[in-house]
Amino acid sequence: MEKTSRIITLTTDFGTSDVYVGVMKGVILNINPDAQVVDITHAISPQNIHEAAFTINSAYRYFPKDTIHVIVVDPGVGSERQAIVCQIDSTFFVCPNNGVLSYLLQNIETEETYIPEAVTIENPTYLLPRVCNTFHGRDIFAPVAAHLSLGVPLAEIGTPIRDLVRFPVPAIRISEDTLTGQIINVDSFGNLITNISENALAAFLLPSASNEDAIGQLDKHKVSEKFEIIAGSTSLKKLNGAYVESGAGEPLAIIGSFGLLEIAINLGNAKARLGLKNGDSIIVRRFD
Amino acid sequence: MEKTSRIITLTTDFGTSDVYVGVMKGVILNINPDAQVVDITHAISPQNIHEAAFTINSAYRYFPKDTIHVIVVDPGVGSERQAIVCQIDSTFFVCPNNGVLSYLLQNIETEETYIPEAVTIENPTYLLPRVCNTFHGRDIFAPVAAHLSLGVPLAEIGTPIRDLVRFPVPAIRISEDTLTGQIINVDSFGNLITNISENALAAFLLPSASNEDAIGQLDKHKVSEKFEIIAGSTSLKKLNGAYVESGAGEPLAIIGSFGLLEIAINLGNAKARLGLKNGDSIIVRRFD
Amino acid sequence: MEKTSRIITLTTDFGTSDVYVGVMKGVILNINPDAQVVDITHAISPQNIHEAAFTINSAYRYFPKDTIHVIVVDPGVGSERQAIVCQIDSTFFVCPNNGVLSYLLQNIETEETYIPEAVTIENPTYLLPRVCNTFHGRDIFAPVAAHLSLGVPLAEIGTPIRDLVRFPVPAIRISEDTLTGQIINVDSFGNLITNISENALAAFLLPSASNEDAIGQLDKHKVSEKFEIIAGSTSLKKLNGAYVESGAGEPLAIIGSFGLLEIAINLGNAKARLGLKNGDSIIVRRFD
Repeated sequence: MEKTSRIITLTTDFGTSDVYVGVMKGVILNINPDAQVVDITHAISPQNIHEAAFTINSAYRYFPKDTIHVIVVDPGVGSERQAIVCQIDSTFFVCPNNGVLSYLLQNIETEETYIPEAVTIENPTYLLPRVCNTFHGRDIFAPVAAHLSLGVPLAEIGTPIRDLVRFPVPAIRISEDTLTGQIINVDSFGNLITNISENALAAFLLPSASNEDAIGQLDKHKVSEKFEIIAGSTSLKKLNGAYVESGAGEPLAIIGSFGLLEIAINLGNAKARLGLKNGDSIIVRRFD
Repeated sequence: MEKTSRIITLTTDFGTSDVYVGVMKGVILNINPDAQVVDITHAISPQNIHEAAFTINSAYRYFPKDTIHVIVVDPGVGSERQAIVCQIDSTFFVCPNNGVLSYLLQNIETEETYIPEAVTIENPTYLLPRVCNTFHGRDIFAPVAAHLSLGVPLAEIGTPIRDLVRFPVPAIRISEDTLTGQIINVDSFGNLITNISENALAAFLLPSASNEDAIGQLDKHKVSEKFEIIAGSTSLKKLNGAYVESGAGEPLAIIGSFGLLEIAINLGNAKARLGLKNGDSIIVRRFD
Repeated sequence: MEKTSRIITLTTDFGTSDVYVGVMKGVILNINPDAQVVDITHAISPQNIHEAAFTINSAYRYFPKDTIHVIVVDPGVGSERQAIVCQIDSTFFVCPNNGVLSYLLQNIETEETYIPEAVTIENPTYLLPRVCNTFHGRDIFAPVAAHLSLGVPLAEIGTPIRDLVRFPVPAIRISEDTLTGQIINVDSFGNLITNISENALAAFLLPSASNEDAIGQLDKHKVSEKFEIIAGSTSLKKLNGAYVESGAGEPLAIIGSFGLLEIAINLGNAKARLGLKNGDSIIVRRFD
């Protein structure tokens, strides 16, 4: 029998000042009192699908496999855009079909062998009796997640679909001795998170090493002085192993907790100090 | 036997920067480790009883019937104002007797057949041993809610009272072809929520139709061009079925998720753009 | 057998805008799905160890004795600073060894008979497989707390240590008719919380009374007009029993909910109005 105490996470742009998030929790617990609701964040910038996509991709892997993730960043609420459930292994993602799974789906394709299955949400049995066109979080996404947590199978929710909306995930470009990435997220500490993964950086900086060795060497700072990282008008010549390896207020480059190259300032705010933002280029030059 | 895993919700103006909310949760879980504590919001404007009253009335109906709602917006803490528990059907509201239930009580009178029962909180058995005059949330409201969740009956808590403090809930006024309402809440998206209910608007715009038909017709936009809605210097001539029916940045009128007329801006902030605030009039003129 | 539904609290400076807190909860629930995670606050000022120390000391006593408190305010993350678990009676504190337990340890020494036991976190069995130098909250503190909640004994986690890092807790100074304390915390209402405890104030103002009598007299305002409290350019001559004993907007002195002397403004913000901040002196002069 399905256990009913499954975790349901919430990622929204609703903020926590209004009743919206509390109401979604009420709806969930009214359907499954044993569900455990966990906030990922409600501070996605309003209607920012890209930020939501980055967020859920960064968080989902740390939750139990049978978690149900609800993502409601939904500028098209009430339009013809579909509401979907996407199942990957035993994890469910309940969200609008608007690109919020873009990073995740790319990730799954690269790293996993599971093929996502998805349905459009249609069966009114699993919605609130009256669906309001301004708050599908309450009337569609929350109740569907709660019913999934009770063991309702995916096929009961609606019709299978193949084409999930995806935005083009920003890719790095490599030409000879230059790797060009970009800032894809700025966290609330002002850390500038890029799309340059540890693996990609290791392969670029240590092309002759095997991948595992390369990462090992990145860890050991053996690559210092063999490259520079250009972030706006700042040039960084080494990769930190920890923030504290730089003095207070000093800009630094580090493989951050997402496994991605970050530009940060020890005990400071890189966004404010370096004047950089989402989408800005970060360039790595290799000295051969 | 009473189940002890009941939900206790919290609505306060404490913010989440200090320890106050965490401490209330500690007190609750110390008394009933199986209680499930859910935040509605802690961002009520400081001491704003009206906002708290709107909030709990908007949220409570989405929670299970046996939920215990704690509301602590309490400018009179430590004064002679009473602390109360109000029971409506199997739902409890634990709060100061200062008007925070005003919307809810009006609502109950209109929609429900239940008669609220209330007591003043008096029995020291159910309070923390020492009650501090600055933090009744911790010393009175949290422990009483926790004991109620364990099945302590209302009569054990204190003496019945009849007169619950209520502020006058702002009413709409209708004179011939004009309905005058007002903004009663502004959410964090800047949506201007009025006291004009879908039912009242339908009855006003379609006086000859039965109520159900009227709502059906509102839903189908059949009333467009038969009225204008005046919000400050903006005139709106139709009722949207969804935000996205208007262009980005365009003001619009819509029946929002509370079943109330809202003035909003698709992908924008109506409060900022229209310069309107709580208490400002919203006028509907009917073209006969 | 150990019950596995133990409470794990979180106190961090991570904010709630990013995924960091949600990810810590995912890690905990992945190890112990029955743990109950409670936020104390995530709004500690960035890297402010003093504020974290005040916070956990103010909050922990309201939680069940077997609670596990995780405190991650960690400017030295990735450096040689130790990660520790400190056990006091049946309560665990999981945190960097950087002073965040300073108030608590002083408190324990003064009030309790328990001797804290502590270990440095070393056993990789209880960490995430790969520890990243920028996010020990996720890779070290969260998983250790989750394993402790499953009953893993302290001795399994690492090696006993004696010397816990502590900053000097600001002490009051008394010379003849003057008691000098200082502001040690400003809450989000702008209340100025001092290090002058109710006990210390009572003993100072009523030196001839027994301690219990002194407190009783403070409670009854019998000391009014026998002293003045100097907060910046403001002089206060009585101790309020409740905020509302002063008019709206009036500065006041009161024993607040932490058992400490607070300077507040009824329905207002003392920090903004009086221009005082953490570390500023508050002076009590006794008229003999």
